[in-house]
This record gives sequence, structure tokens and C-alpha cells, in this order.
Amino acid sequence: MSINLTNTLSTQLSAYELRQLIRQGKFIDNTSGYAQGCVQGNIVILPKDWANDFLQFCQFNPKPCPLIGMSENAGDFYLPALGTDIDIRTDVPGYRLFVNGELEQEINDITTLWRDDLVTFVLGCSFSFEEALIADGIEIRNISENKNVPMYRTNIACKTAGRFSGETVVSMRPMLPKDAIRAIQICSRFPSVHGAPIHFGQPEQIGIQDINTPDYGDRVTIKENEVPVFWACGVTPQLALERTKPPFCITHSPGKMLVTDIANTTLAIL
Amino acid sequence: MSINLTNTLSTQLSAYELRQLIRQGKFIDNTSGYAQGCVQGNIVILPKDWANDFLQFCQFNPKPCPLIGMSENAGDFYLPALGTDIDIRTDVPGYRLFVNGELEQEINDITTLWRDDLVTFVLGCSFSFEEALIADGIEIRNISENKNVPMYRTNIACKTAGRFSGETVVSMRPMLPKDAIRAIQICSRFPSVHGAPIHFGQPEQIGIQDINTPDYGDRVTIKENEVPVFWACGVTPQLALERTKPPFCITHSPGKMLVTDIANTTLAIL
Repeated sequence: MSINLTNTLSTQLSAYELRQLIRQGKFIDNTSGYAQGCVQGNIVILPKDWANDFLQFCQFNPKPCPLIGMSENAGDFYLPALGTDIDIRTDVPGYRLFVNGELEQEINDITTLWRDDLVTFVLGCSFSFEEALIADGIEIRNISENKNVPMYRTNIACKTAGRFSGETVVSMRPMLPKDAIRAIQICSRFPSVHGAPIHFGQPEQIGIQDINTPDYGDRVTIKENEVPVFWACGVTPQLALERTKPPFCITHSPGKMLVTDIANTTLAIL
Repeated sequence: MSINLTNTLSTQLSAYELRQLIRQGKFIDNTSGYAQGCVQGNIVILPKDWANDFLQFCQFNPKPCPLIGMSENAGDFYLPALGTDIDIRTDVPGYRLFVNGELEQEINDITTLWRDDLVTFVLGCSFSFEEALIADGIEIRNISENKNVPMYRTNIACKTAGRFSGETVVSMRPMLPKDAIRAIQICSRFPSVHGAPIHFGQPEQIGIQDINTPDYGDRVTIKENEVPVFWACGVTPQLALERTKPPFCITHSPGKMLVTDIANTTLAIL
């Protein structure tokens, strides 16, 4: 397969083409905006003896941890249900290795770290519902301001599963109330990418002290008459992993997602 | 058919039994809480030469004016699509006659006023979605405080149709944001009974000056952390009728609705 440099910079690449570039080390950027229409996923890779607890944590907390795929067997590095020839060891632009809960290194290939007991989890991400909202004419402030979405730790406890526990992290998008109502309708159709918002309005009601100082991501403008609208966020499982400190864990680097072949629209439940 | 007095006072009456009592003049109260599970409707009766404009007004403004039935032909006083043996001249507990836009009289039977050119419209009402919200465990403040729902004129213009125009009237129910999100989901399933809310939060954004002074109905308590949530309201067409002043018009008296045989649940679009 040959891809010229013009294509390399293009957002017109298919998900498969993009993954090939990533595998070859020719694409190491954030994946936002690439392979539009395709589901992108958060990655969590854990040893088998930690995987069951994590699977249960996802099952108990589907809004922050919506599971869209996992390896069929421990040690599998292909994920055929999510796309053609996906090799989870090479096809994500950036990985983070955590050892005993501490960030050990950021790398672009985990082939040498792979073990026969590793289980891969792929969790839905907000890119899918943002695309659906934009298609409906709703402005997404973090996109129009070219920033990372602001994210906040809340006081909303996740349901504990085995060794995993923690508070829910939320992402925030400011909207007019009428757009928030429409966003609730649209996002309700997409439970596997966080679903409907879990809060709007006063941040302090969910334990956020200062809306202008997000815990992750960037501050965005909140215009007059807009309310902050909060979605459960895929950073939640990362917070649980930080707290639980499994001896070995690999995640994607923030913003550098697994790009699957699954169409966003097929995630709609109705 | 014989109904004893104990039954007369009972909310266990079927819609058909209740209509029979109404027809016999034995029930002249508000219909809220009776024949639970059955759709209740707002009534507008107009001469044929005004009916087409009104029909178009409903079509242009489906959220405040959700049409769930109308006479098949001018002059028909039966509404077979809405229930067994419904006679619109006798089966509503209270009617209002408007002449040139002025309230002329309130009566319990319009048989003597009936004309061969009259067309009946039945519009969905909030009782249906309140029932769905309560079934989901959401408190409806006007019900728990045993009051009429507070209603407000807004600055949201209806789309004009022929001689009919006016502003949208809204009803308000205070809720915690998480319940408001759930209410938006539930009500989105019921477009024929006003559908999803059209606003929440700051009342002044839609032209409401004082949330504690409703234009119609009663003030209800708004608790700490609750936001007012606003639905398009069936009083909207009454306001349009007041403004347009057709020479002859009959409506139900507020709270005294047509009780149909249609199950609320069958109005759910999904």
C-alpha cells in the first residue's frame, strides 16, 4: 500500500489507511477529526487477573465506561470485531505504560511489552456524539475554539467493582438550554458513547468548585445565557486505575485513540 | 348501565363509565386523576370556515398544539377514533362558549348550541406525560402540592396560520437537573402530548418576568438546586383564539377535559 505525503496530512483517510500509517510510525498525532464517521475508542489493557474486575467496573458504570469491544481471549492482539487487521500493539498513535499506577513511559508501539495474559478493552468516546451534535447544527465549543474539552472530577461515586472504585469524571460543553434539550435527545440514542448528559447547570451540585479551572483539558468560553452541560467521561476509568494501581496497565495517550471501522451511526440504538 | 354513588366518587371508573356520568350531569369536576392511563384532551370547536386556519395553526405549532383527533366531517358530534360512543356535545364536564372572543357562558352541555358547521379538535394534554414521569419516579410538584400547574406567557412566537397567531404559553415543573434530563428523555417519546420541554433554567430568557407569578394556574414551590423546566402548553391555542376572536368558539373549561379511551402508553413513538 502506498500513501503519499499529501494523503498523510489528509483527514480524508479511511480508518484502515490511518491505522496503517500509525502502524508504520508515520502518524503520531491526536486522532480527533480523522476518519470522520468512524468510532474512536479509549484503550485500557490489563493483565487477565485484573481484567475481570475492570470488566465488572465497566458493567456497573456504563455511562463513564461504555464498553464497545474487548479481546476475545487473553493475549489476543487483534480485534476483528472493531475493524480490518487491527493490531492493538501498533495501531494506536500513542500509549502510556503504568507500573503500579505510576506513568512509566509514553511510547508509540507496545509490541515489545506484549504479554500472553493481556486483555484489551475499548471504550466509547465523545467524538462520536460530538459528530452527531454537529450534524444537527449544534456548536461544540471545544471544537469551535480548537481546544481539548474541559473535564472535571466530580463527587459522583462510581459503583465499586472488586478492586476498582473512584469518582466520575465529566466533560463539559456549554450550550443554550434549547440546544441542551436537543443534545439530551440526540445523545440518548448513543448509550455506548456515554449517552445522555448526567448534569447541567450549577457545577457545585456535583462537586466542581471552579468551572473555569478544569482538572483536565482546556477552559472554554461559556457565553451569556448558556449553561454548562456535563457528560460522563472516559477519563473516569483512568482515575480508577490511578487509584487502584494495578502492577501493569497500558492505556492510549490522551487524544490518541484507536480508530475503528465501525460507523458512528451504527451505535444509535434508535 | 347503573353506577352507584360509591363508584361515582371513585377514580377507578373507566373512561367510558366516567363519560356516561358526565353525560348524565352526575360528574362536573376536574378530570385530573380520573380514568388513569387514558388520554385526556383539550377541546376546541370552531365553525368550518375557521377550522382550516386552526388546523394549519396546529400543524405549524405541534408542540403547543398537538392534535390527537378531530371530527371526520363538519357537524359530526361523535368522535369514534377516540373512544366508544363519545358525544362531544355532552361528554365533557364543562364548556366555555366564546362569542367574538368574549367568554359568553360556562355550561355543562352544548347540545342546544350545536350547529351543522362545527368542527371539533382534540389536543393532547400534559396529564399523559405527567403520568409517564410519575411512573418513572419523578415528583411532579403541582401534583404533590395539589395545585394547578403554573403557566406563563412567553415571548416565543407561534408560527402564524391564516388568522391565527400568538405567543407560546408554557407550563412549568421544577426539577433537579438529573430528573430534568430524564424527563426530557421520557417526554421525547410523547410528541402528541407536547413532547420534550422547550426551555429550562432562566425564565427571563423566554420573556417570563416573575416565576412566582404565573399568568395561569398556581405558584408551586421551587426547591434549592431545582431548575424550572418549561413545556409548551395547551393554553397556547386559547390565547390565539382570544386574540383572533372568531365569532363562535367552544372550548372545554380549564381542567375539565375530554377523557378518551386511548391508552397514554400508545402515544409513545418508541
